[in-house]
Amino acid sequence: MEKIKITDKVLLLGKSDFLVDVAKGVFHTNHGTIKLSSLVGKKFGVNIKSSKGESFSVLRPNINDFLEKRLARLPQIVSLKDCSLIAGYTGLSSGYRVIEAGTGSAFLTTFMANLVKPDGKIFTYELRTDFFNAAKKNIDDSGLSQWVDAKNRDISKGFREKDADIVVLDMIGAEKIVSKAHKALKSGGFLVVYSPYIEQVKSVCNKIEMENFLDVRTTECLVRDYKITRDFSRPNTTMLSHTGYITFARKI
Amino acid sequence: MEKIKITDKVLLLGKSDFLVDVAKGVFHTNHGTIKLSSLVGKKFGVNIKSSKGESFSVLRPNINDFLEKRLARLPQIVSLKDCSLIAGYTGLSSGYRVIEAGTGSAFLTTFMANLVKPDGKIFTYELRTDFFNAAKKNIDDSGLSQWVDAKNRDISKGFREKDADIVVLDMIGAEKIVSKAHKALKSGGFLVVYSPYIEQVKSVCNKIEMENFLDVRTTECLVRDYKITRDFSRPNTTMLSHTGYITFARKI
Amino acid sequence: MEKIKITDKVLLLGKSDFLVDVAKGVFHTNHGTIKLSSLVGKKFGVNIKSSKGESFSVLRPNINDFLEKRLARLPQIVSLKDCSLIAGYTGLSSGYRVIEAGTGSAFLTTFMANLVKPDGKIFTYELRTDFFNAAKKNIDDSGLSQWVDAKNRDISKGFREKDADIVVLDMIGAEKIVSKAHKALKSGGFLVVYSPYIEQVKSVCNKIEMENFLDVRTTECLVRDYKITRDFSRPNTTMLSHTGYITFARKI
Amino acid sequence: MEKIKITDKVLLLGKSDFLVDVAKGVFHTNHGTIKLSSLVGKKFGVNIKSSKGESFSVLRPNINDFLEKRLARLPQIVSLKDCSLIAGYTGLSSGYRVIEAGTGSAFLTTFMANLVKPDGKIFTYELRTDFFNAAKKNIDDSGLSQWVDAKNRDISKGFREKDADIVVLDMIGAEKIVSKAHKALKSGGFLVVYSPYIEQVKSVCNKIEMENFLDVRTTECLVRDYKITRDFSRPNTTMLSHTGYITFARKI
Repeated sequence: MEKIKITDKVLLLGKSDFLVDVAKGVFHTNHGTIKLSSLVGKKFGVNIKSSKGESFSVLRPNINDFLEKRLARLPQIVSLKDCSLIAGYTGLSSGYRVIEAGTGSAFLTTFMANLVKPDGKIFTYELRTDFFNAAKKNIDDSGLSQWVDAKNRDISKGFREKDADIVVLDMIGAEKIVSKAHKALKSGGFLVVYSPYIEQVKSVCNKIEMENFLDVRTTECLVRDYKITRDFSRPNTTMLSHTGYITFARKI
Repeated sequence: MEKIKITDKVLLLGKSDFLVDVAKGVFHTNHGTIKLSSLVGKKFGVNIKSSKGESFSVLRPNINDFLEKRLARLPQIVSLKDCSLIAGYTGLSSGYRVIEAGTGSAFLTTFMANLVKPDGKIFTYELRTDFFNAAKKNIDDSGLSQWVDAKNRDISKGFREKDADIVVLDMIGAEKIVSKAHKALKSGGFLVVYSPYIEQVKSVCNKIEMENFLDVRTTECLVRDYKITRDFSRPNTTMLSHTGYITFARKI
Repeated sequence: MEKIKITDKVLLLGKSDFLVDVAKGVFHTNHGTIKLSSLVGKKFGVNIKSSKGESFSVLRPNINDFLEKRLARLPQIVSLKDCSLIAGYTGLSSGYRVIEAGTGSAFLTTFMANLVKPDGKIFTYELRTDFFNAAKKNIDDSGLSQWVDAKNRDISKGFREKDADIVVLDMIGAEKIVSKAHKALKSGGFLVVYSPYIEQVKSVCNKIEMENFLDVRTTECLVRDYKITRDFSRPNTTMLSHTGYITFARKI
Repeated sequence: MEKIKITDKVLLLGKSDFLVDVAKGVFHTNHGTIKLSSLVGKKFGVNIKSSKGESFSVLRPNINDFLEKRLARLPQIVSLKDCSLIAGYTGLSSGYRVIEAGTGSAFLTTFMANLVKPDGKIFTYELRTDFFNAAKKNIDDSGLSQWVDAKNRDISKGFREKDADIVVLDMIGAEKIVSKAHKALKSGGFLVVYSPYIEQVKSVCNKIEMENFLDVRTTECLVRDYKITRDFSRPNTTMLSHTGYITFARKI
C-alpha cells in the first residue's frame, strides 16, 4: 500500500465524502475539522478522526471520484454511462489520440484523458471562453493536464490534428463538422457524436452518409438500478430516461 | 499512417469483414482469394482486390474488431455494453491490477487487458481446463498476453494476488468468493460481480453486507439502437432485453 | 351534447383542474369562486368564469379524471399503465365477473368496474377495516358502486364467488391464495397477480405451477413519455422505472 | 358453466391451440381429427380427444384468443400492449362512440368493439379496398360486427360522425386529419394518434398545437417479459423494442 504524500489528493469517506488536496493542511467540514497534514507518510486506507470525533477512511481517489465529487459542472455533462459506452465501443485506451469538440465542463475530456495515458492525448476545442476557462481549471485539477491539449478555438475552421483515432462531437451544429472530422480521422478511426435530440441525430446521419464511413450506429444507453435487501429485490422506483443519443461511424 | 508489417493482423472490410494474420500469406474467402503478403510495406487504409475483383479496405484492427470477429466463444461472454460499464464505473485504466474469475472465453479479460496496458495486469482464474485452454488461445491471439496472467486454478482456495484495484467475478457461486475478494482488494478498490439471475445478485449482496464495503450498487445496462434514414427515425424493432446484472462495491 | 344535471359531477379545466359535484352549489378555489348551480341545464363543453374572472371549461369527467383527480389514495395504487395491461391482456369488458383482493384504495377496483358495466361485477375483498372504509368511500364517489361488491373480509378463508372470469390479487401473501383462485375461476379464466417484488413473483409462480394453469406469463410495463416541440423531440429526462410485475395465468 | 351451442366458437387448447366454429362439424389437425359436433350440449371446460388420442381443453374464447389465433393480419397491427394503453388512458368502455382511421386488419377495431358493447359503436374508415375487405371479414368473424360500422371511404373529406368520445388515427398523413378529428370530437373527448416514426409524431403535435387541445402527451409502451423458474428469475433475453409512439390530446 502506498504512502500519502503532501502533493496527493485524498478521498475522505465518512458521513459525507470529500476529495481534497493534502497540501491544504486543514479541511473544515460540518462534521468537524480534519488535519490533512497529519496524513503525510501514512498509508492509503488509514482512518482519521475529525475534531468532532467523526471517522473518515482516507483513500486514493480514482477518476470517477474526481468526476463526481470535484469537477465543477458548467454546461451539461456527458454522463458516466455514456462516457463508458463511447470508450468501450471505440476501443479507447492508452496511446489513443482523440479530438473532442466542445470541451464543455471537461467531464468527458478528463474521463478520456485517464484512458489514453501514458502515451495518448486528448485535443479538445471549446469556442466559449467562459466554458474554456472552467474546463481548463477542471483539467488542471484532475491531475491529467499532461494528456490534454485544450484550446479556446472555433472548430468550424477545422482541426489542426491529423490521423486521430477518434473524433468526438458534443456540440450544437455537429453536422457541420462531420466532413472535417472525416479528414482528421485515420482510416479505421471512429467518429462519435453525442446528441440530446433526435433531430440532431438525423442531421448528423445525413452528413455521415455523404462521407466514406462504415458501421454507422446510433444507440442510447439506459441504466436501471436495483434495490436489493435481504428479503426483497426490485428496480428503483425512478430512473434516468434520457441523456443523449450516441452515433458511431467508422472511417474507411 | 503506419506501414503494414508481416507480423501484423489486418482487418479486411468489404462485402464481408475478416480479421487475419498477414503472415498467413494467402486468405481464401467466398469473395475470392486475397494475397496478404502483397500488403507488407503498404500503409494501413490501403485497398486490396480479391481474385474475384472484390475490393477490401485494409485497416489496423482494434480491440473490438478482435472481440467481435475473431475471439472464439465457448461459454457465454460478458457483452460489450457490460464490459464498458464495468470499466467506466471503476475507472479501469492503464496500470490497474485486476483479478478476474472465471476467465470463460476471455472476452472481458482481453477487453480489460487492452485498458490496463502498458503497465497493469489482469490475473484471471478458470477452473475448467477446456475453458482455460480456449481462453488461453484467445488471449494469445489478441496480442495482449503480456498483460494477462491466466491460471487454470480453483479460486475457492483464494487468490494469490494482493492490493488489486478491481476483483471481477463472473462465475457460479460468486457469493462464496466475496470475502476472499475483499481481502485481495486494496482499500478503495472495487468488487464487481456479473450475475445473469437476480437470485445470484441477492446472494452476493448479502455477503457484501457482511464485509466492509461502501457504495454498493446493482445495475443493468440496456442499449437501444435506432434506425435513422433521411426521412424517418425509430428504434429498431427488437433489442437485447437482458444479459446480466452488475453489482459494484467498494472496499474501505 | 348532453345537458348538465344537478346530480352530475363536472370536470373544471382551467389554470387548475377540479372534479366537483354540481350539487355542491358553490365551489371555492385559489382562482376565485365558481357558481356550480348556474351550470344546471347548460351543455357539457360550456365555459364558466370564476369570481376572479378565470375561465374554466366544464366537461363530463371520465373514469380517469376520477382516478387521477378525485380518488383518495391510502395504500399504494396499481398505476394506470398496469391497470390498462391487466384489462387488455385478459379481455376484461362488459359482463365480466371479477374477484379482487385486496381492494386497497379501490383504484383498480373502480377502473375495472367502469369496464364491466352494465352487466358485470367486481367482487372485492379487503381485510383491513381502515382501507375498506376508505375504499368504500372512493367506490361510492366514483358512481360505480352498482358494479362493485366490496367486502371487509379475510380471503384466506376463500372466496364465495364461483365461475369468475378473472381473479386479481394485489396483496402480501398472494401465493397462499393461488389455489383458492383456481377454484373460483371458470375454465379459461385468468389469474392475475400484481407483485412489487420479484420474490413475490417467484412464490406465486411456484404455486401456479402446482395447479392446472396454462399460458403463464410474467411481465412488466414501462411507459416512456416524450417532449415534442416544433424544433426538437426527445424522451423526458426521468421516468418511472418500476411499479410492479404482473403475472398472468389461465385456468384449464 | 354454460353449455356449448352449434353457433359457438370454441378454443381448443392442447399441443397446439385452435379457435374454431363448432358448426364446422369436423376439424382436421396435425394431432388428429376432432369431432366438433360432439361438443354441442357439453359444458365449456370439457376435454375432447382427437382421433390420434391427443387431449384438448375446450374453452369459450375471449377477444384476445380471437386477436391472436384467428384474426387475419394484412397490414401491420397495433399490438395488444398499445391497444391496452389506448383504451386505458382514454377510459374507453361500454357506450363509447369511437371513430377510427384506418381500419387496417381491424385488430384495434375489434379490440375496441369488445369494450364498447353493448351500447357503443366503432366507426372505422379504410381507404384501400383490399384492406377494407380483409378487415370486414375479420370483423364479421369476431362476432362483434354489431358494434362496428366499417366504411371503405377516404376520410380526407372528413368524418360523418359527431360528438365522438375518441378519434383514433393509425394512418400515413394523420397530421392532415387532426383538425377534422377536433371537429368530430365532443368536448372532453380524446384524439389518439399511433405513429411508428418520430417524424410523424412531430407533424401531428404541430397540428395539435394549432387546435384547442389540452393534456397533450406522447408516450411509448415497453413490455418486458420474465423467465421465472423454481431456482432462477431473469428477464427474457430479447424483447420488442419498438412498435409505435402514441399521442393523446383532449379536446376542450
